[in-house]
Amino acid sequence: MEKLNVAVVGATGLAGREFIKVLEQRRFPVGSIRLFDSEHSSDTELFFDHQRIQIEEITPDVFRDTDVVFFFADADVSRRLVPLAVGVGAVAIDNSSAFSSEADVPLVVPEVNLSDIEWHKGIIANPNCTTIQLAVTLNPLHKIIPVKRVVLSTYQSVSGSGTAAIKELTSQTRLVLDGYRVCPHIYAHQISFNVLPEIGLFLDSGYTREEQRIADETRKVMHVENIAISATCVRVPVYFGDSASVHIEFEASMNSAKVRRLLAEAPGIRIIDDCSVSLYPQPWASSDSNLIFIGRIRKDLSLSNGVALWVVADNIHKCTALNAVLILEEGVRKGWINKTGDHRRF
Amino acid sequence: MEKLNVAVVGATGLAGREFIKVLEQRRFPVGSIRLFDSEHSSDTELFFDHQRIQIEEITPDVFRDTDVVFFFADADVSRRLVPLAVGVGAVAIDNSSAFSSEADVPLVVPEVNLSDIEWHKGIIANPNCTTIQLAVTLNPLHKIIPVKRVVLSTYQSVSGSGTAAIKELTSQTRLVLDGYRVCPHIYAHQISFNVLPEIGLFLDSGYTREEQRIADETRKVMHVENIAISATCVRVPVYFGDSASVHIEFEASMNSAKVRRLLAEAPGIRIIDDCSVSLYPQPWASSDSNLIFIGRIRKDLSLSNGVALWVVADNIHKCTALNAVLILEEGVRKGWINKTGDHRRF
Repeated sequence: MEKLNVAVVGATGLAGREFIKVLEQRRFPVGSIRLFDSEHSSDTELFFDHQRIQIEEITPDVFRDTDVVFFFADADVSRRLVPLAVGVGAVAIDNSSAFSSEADVPLVVPEVNLSDIEWHKGIIANPNCTTIQLAVTLNPLHKIIPVKRVVLSTYQSVSGSGTAAIKELTSQTRLVLDGYRVCPHIYAHQISFNVLPEIGLFLDSGYTREEQRIADETRKVMHVENIAISATCVRVPVYFGDSASVHIEFEASMNSAKVRRLLAEAPGIRIIDDCSVSLYPQPWASSDSNLIFIGRIRKDLSLSNGVALWVVADNIHKCTALNAVLILEEGVRKGWINKTGDHRRF
Repeated sequence: MEKLNVAVVGATGLAGREFIKVLEQRRFPVGSIRLFDSEHSSDTELFFDHQRIQIEEITPDVFRDTDVVFFFADADVSRRLVPLAVGVGAVAIDNSSAFSSEADVPLVVPEVNLSDIEWHKGIIANPNCTTIQLAVTLNPLHKIIPVKRVVLSTYQSVSGSGTAAIKELTSQTRLVLDGYRVCPHIYAHQISFNVLPEIGLFLDSGYTREEQRIADETRKVMHVENIAISATCVRVPVYFGDSASVHIEFEASMNSAKVRRLLAEAPGIRIIDDCSVSLYPQPWASSDSNLIFIGRIRKDLSLSNGVALWVVADNIHKCTALNAVLILEEGVRKGWINKTGDHRRF
């Protein structure tokens, strides 16, 4: 396989660093790698494959001779720079929400809709972590008995808000343990020893953008328009790992034993579910895993066709870094992502 | 009003101490107060109304001359000692689950079913915190449009597991911040910077006893048999305050503005709900309050007759201590709790 030239925007953030680590560990055949970040980045170089790589600032024409550009910055940065990458013939794999809802941009969870990569026109979007957990969980079930409605409440870690949020949880926690009051910076309120039902901007509907995004993205990834999804997203004082309590209503009878069997056979999932010895997925125990963990699988007693379960995955390692690397690996393997200029264009 | 002689079992635990504080603050006319705990209690005396009160061990006949005995120990202790209290003519107000499901034991949330105290036969049960939050929230809505089904996921603080859990959260947190691995004692797994979907023993249904109890108790408090309730109970690294994400399905059309108005007028509730300035209930900000806080009220977009909301209350102060004191105050005021021998008996 011909080596690809790769660039990473937002390389020094939590997600960018984890992506670089995963790319290296999986020995993807990289020709050159260029790392970019804003001038505010605290680091000036990172290691890739034992080489020091300078962190560069973005300038016009910067993506020339690059085959694939990964974006781990916020949506505004992606909106500004993704067109530059696509303009010089590179494929942009974007972790922000900037393009994820556009009809001609595939939104890909490799375990669910890998073949959507085929019709990309230069941009491939990486979904939200909860979307990935939900789509990987629902898809193998929906194929057997259609899913009608999902109610979920999340327990999302601070790493989803980046390095500064990790630092804030640590510093706030120390202050609170020492008896001080704290002044929040990253979140609207104290996150240490507290939970905050606010992730993303609030919409007129009263849902947050994150909550709406989970519903929209899950339907897009699964290619279904009529699954009703209602989410409540909550930030909890956990460093890594997003958890969700998921209550699923099916169109017809579905029992928990069948759900357990279908999920056990599905790709990317490990069942951790033995109540007799208190075994169930936990964010602390899911760090750095390539899998999505599912437990607490039980018939929902409030409904004739319902099943409830509990899902956990590492939001940074699995849902952000690994998902992007898998899109690259599989896209290249299938011939859907190629050297610059070979792929279909806008 | 004639002063009542009061006894407290489990006086040195978190709930017992808080109860004593609230009883004192509200200036309930106490004749004598006797405080009991097991021989393992670390304290030998507590203050009540500036008086030192010795902590006594339970002996036979210990409740003689007592009018009301409050139980803040576990269900086994209540099962053993509540009959002793009732046997000498005292009223037992029990915070455990020992008698809460018995048909001839009223389970009372003063804001919802105060008048159930009237038919007590010596025992009055205090519900689970989440039950109290849920019943206070659902009752004013259910009176207008019947509630059909409720899906809730909780974010419950460690104080619900007592003093040792508070200490464990603190010590684990310090160890984790210093880079050590921790060994859990109170919970099956690390609680610091983690979330655990296990509260109470697991039942054959796959639900925990806590999850089943919330469903059963809410129906009992509200006097309705047909509200379907499915709960997922999760322990989070928070000291005080239980939160719940609640998705309600009504039998007929109900909009979020009407829910907000009905709840704003209902007893015991304060609405904290202004998304434009990130205002919503948080456990950290709800400590020591006498109220149940509700926010994030919105139409559930996955359902035609659905509303979603977020509820927070102080599990120890409001749901345990104050609920028990209110049962006493109101029961006495209405003449349903009297000096020993005056009330109806087994």
